[in-house]
Amino acid sequence: MPYINTKTNTVITKEKEIEIKKKFGKAIELIPGKSENWLMVSFEDHCSMYFKGKSDDSMAFVEVKLFGSADSGAYNKLTAAITKILKEELDINPDHIYVKYEEVSNWGWNGSNF
Amino acid sequence: MPYINTKTNTVITKEKEIEIKKKFGKAIELIPGKSENWLMVSFEDHCSMYFKGKSDDSMAFVEVKLFGSADSGAYNKLTAAITKILKEELDINPDHIYVKYEEVSNWGWNGSNF
Amino acid sequence: MPYINTKTNTVITKEKEIEIKKKFGKAIELIPGKSENWLMVSFEDHCSMYFKGKSDDSMAFVEVKLFGSADSGAYNKLTAAITKILKEELDINPDHIYVKYEEVSNWGWNGSNF
Repeated sequence: MPYINTKTNTVITKEKEIEIKKKFGKAIELIPGKSENWLMVSFEDHCSMYFKGKSDDSMAFVEVKLFGSADSGAYNKLTAAITKILKEELDINPDHIYVKYEEVSNWGWNGSNF
Repeated sequence: MPYINTKTNTVITKEKEIEIKKKFGKAIELIPGKSENWLMVSFEDHCSMYFKGKSDDSMAFVEVKLFGSADSGAYNKLTAAITKILKEELDINPDHIYVKYEEVSNWGWNGSNF
Repeated sequence: MPYINTKTNTVITKEKEIEIKKKFGKAIELIPGKSENWLMVSFEDHCSMYFKGKSDDSMAFVEVKLFGSADSGAYNKLTAAITKILKEELDINPDHIYVKYEEVSNWGWNGSNF
């Protein structure tokens, strides 16, 4: 039950989007017990965004939400992986990428909660 | 002070939107002390989304945010209600719907926090 | 590492957007240790939103996410400031503005977590 949303001020072509979701589907395995089998992914491109008061450079705000929790080492590895993917695919500089984690206690699927 | 955001890859017509927000306004009463009187609702349709690596089927990611907390039984009932509403109104299969809860400690309205 | 997202059903012109982000960059200093130097800001305007079942009036849902935590007094001051800014710049009534806080334990930047 992980979910990853990527918000960016740059444009994501359909080709890039497919490449990124494929790589995210692999990267999520860095969190023990998680896989693409339960992963939902969404993209918001061309957003109005500012970092340090400026909007000239490409930037991204990535939110990873997951049922339960994991240790900080796993999150750290996932941050490295997600950052690398966004640098490779969208050429966003790592120092313009935030990756934020949310551990969720109540999460529903198929009409009832886990 | 509850808030429900629905993110989906399908289209929500204005008629459907009004129907869904009306039903959400009723469903939120499943959480003790909450009602449409304090409910804010938002919709994001036609989003770029993938579940299990695929984007062919309709899907939704629903976020329920509320001030304070409730017991897991109430959340479970709300998940059932929201899932039913999205199946009825948008024909999204329940196994393609995530409903995620966030309990919030600091929440402001009208210029100051509760 | 703070982040502020503003979601509203009204329109935000580029001029207003720049004014708001400038004021947010100052307001964030109400949280000890935070400044525009680490602030990411995003805007979503013209959203489909309802408050108390109605969509006729302008409204906003503001999410403030920050690494670590602060005391509730600081959050309260920031709510007052953000509400004032949105009233001034977008003429949204304070009783149609929610400001919600999320304290984050795992937050990555530049490829690794803080």
